[in-house]
Amino acid sequence: MTDFTRRNLIAGASLAAAGAAAPQAEAATPPAGKQAPSVYRYRVGEFEITALYDGVWYRPIDEKFVRHADYAEVRREMSDAFMPEEKLATPFTTVLVNTGKKLILLDTGTGGQIASTAGSFSDNLKAAGIDPKTIDQIVISHFHPDHINGIKTKDNALIFPNAEIMVPEAEWKFWNDDANMRAAPEGLKIVFHNVRRIFADIAKDVTHYRPGKVVAPGIETVDAAGHTPGHAVFALQSGKEQLMVLSDTTQHPALFARHPDWQPQFDIDGAQAVATRRKLLDRAAADRTLVTGYHFPFPACGHIVKTTTGYEHVPVLWDINV
Amino acid sequence: MTDFTRRNLIAGASLAAAGAAAPQAEAATPPAGKQAPSVYRYRVGEFEITALYDGVWYRPIDEKFVRHADYAEVRREMSDAFMPEEKLATPFTTVLVNTGKKLILLDTGTGGQIASTAGSFSDNLKAAGIDPKTIDQIVISHFHPDHINGIKTKDNALIFPNAEIMVPEAEWKFWNDDANMRAAPEGLKIVFHNVRRIFADIAKDVTHYRPGKVVAPGIETVDAAGHTPGHAVFALQSGKEQLMVLSDTTQHPALFARHPDWQPQFDIDGAQAVATRRKLLDRAAADRTLVTGYHFPFPACGHIVKTTTGYEHVPVLWDINV
Repeated sequence: MTDFTRRNLIAGASLAAAGAAAPQAEAATPPAGKQAPSVYRYRVGEFEITALYDGVWYRPIDEKFVRHADYAEVRREMSDAFMPEEKLATPFTTVLVNTGKKLILLDTGTGGQIASTAGSFSDNLKAAGIDPKTIDQIVISHFHPDHINGIKTKDNALIFPNAEIMVPEAEWKFWNDDANMRAAPEGLKIVFHNVRRIFADIAKDVTHYRPGKVVAPGIETVDAAGHTPGHAVFALQSGKEQLMVLSDTTQHPALFARHPDWQPQFDIDGAQAVATRRKLLDRAAADRTLVTGYHFPFPACGHIVKTTTGYEHVPVLWDINV
Repeated sequence: MTDFTRRNLIAGASLAAAGAAAPQAEAATPPAGKQAPSVYRYRVGEFEITALYDGVWYRPIDEKFVRHADYAEVRREMSDAFMPEEKLATPFTTVLVNTGKKLILLDTGTGGQIASTAGSFSDNLKAAGIDPKTIDQIVISHFHPDHINGIKTKDNALIFPNAEIMVPEAEWKFWNDDANMRAAPEGLKIVFHNVRRIFADIAKDVTHYRPGKVVAPGIETVDAAGHTPGHAVFALQSGKEQLMVLSDTTQHPALFARHPDWQPQFDIDGAQAVATRRKLLDRAAADRTLVTGYHFPFPACGHIVKTTTGYEHVPVLWDINV
């Protein structure tokens, strides 16, 4: 017996109206086949923060990658975190601050120049309704390629033509020193060359800052050397609310917050990086400060809890309001 | 001395072109003031899954809310998870499955009828590019209001007019039984009344399923009674990939996965709910199955790890591809 329920009648009418022959062969809405915009907004006092996702780099690693760690333990932690093994899942989230007076970008993403699984920053900026021309200021935490490449296209055109670019003075000196470049291991030389590619022809327009510099009202730079010689983090305050932008204080927290003493090869001065990591994470945990980390899983903001062995990142609960 | 850097000249030209007088008084892009679309897509074999966020209900609770738990410990866990205390942060994420042939919605959200901090499902569905008329099938896990209210507007109009609605047979019987309603504690009576509001005038069009029913190729319903008498979860399989849709097997995982023996008042048969929770989470952990939970933090998909004391939810790493 044919099942003439009201629903089937409606569906039948709908199909007829659409000119389709029953039975249905395909869903009326095809699969999107692409990710939705990866943008998350939150407030810190009067500041509106926009977390803009740039994707993930799955960086091949080997037993030399983490100093002061048993590689079997590293792989077990990666497996326990459902990360791929032999590759370090490295997500990138940039932070845009609308202070009301200025649009300030803290680091710039990979510019699509590092991995095919990253480079969505520009699309997500567009999805967030922001024209790159309206960004007033870029503040760079340090000179690793995934933080500065987004300043330029791969053809060396400025992506944010109206933005003042501010960089740590110590970072500028270290990476632009030819003696340091000559002394660097082969794998690191490419980073020195990349710094020259990005900055050589715009050097006179780049502003240098020292730790402690207030780069805009409510945004103070804080020394966090170790990861690189001039590595900086950013303390934001608006009204009574705070956000600590931890930059690369810790790489993926499932490995390097849980094991603060592990030293990824990224950390140029491993011991100093560990001391900085512990100091900043201790402070964030004690003060229950809202934090964001460049390599924390998107949307990359949340809090830090101290455990008996290290630290845990507690992601913020996604809010439908801002 | 005036600082005529290239940047300032460009910025000046840009401001002049826009007819604005320097110095800049406001950011050229105003704060958005609202959240970005909260939509996340991922694949399970040939299925495209869309996680659609409906928001959070901050439900006031008291010392009677969690049976078999010390309330001080409950509050400490909430504080450690940076959740508000005295209120249980209850996020809602609905799951839409595009099988290629059909668009199937698993539970429907709050319909904007439960909390002012929830109800974004419709906006997010629209942001995902999906017309409610194109949804072919709705499969309901159980009859709590946050799962069924989204079937209708508050004025009782069907939101998905072409969708077949499938509900657990045991759920239908339990909540439509007048003797059960009369025997129910006062606070639960409202749930019985709500079931009647949603289903009374469409009863003849609603399909009942028993656990084990394959509601569409690759989507099997699985008995998960305890939370409610007919509570169901969904096992999805496409090709070699699987997703377990855990429905309300556990409420917010920071409390009830970490403490599987805690019995929230939501769980009608607390002991049975604990047994079901342990069984399903044990299986998910052992098989390393991708899971999603209705009350997991958005995007609500990830994996389950067994710990010495309970379980942890490990959120999936946000992917820029699908």
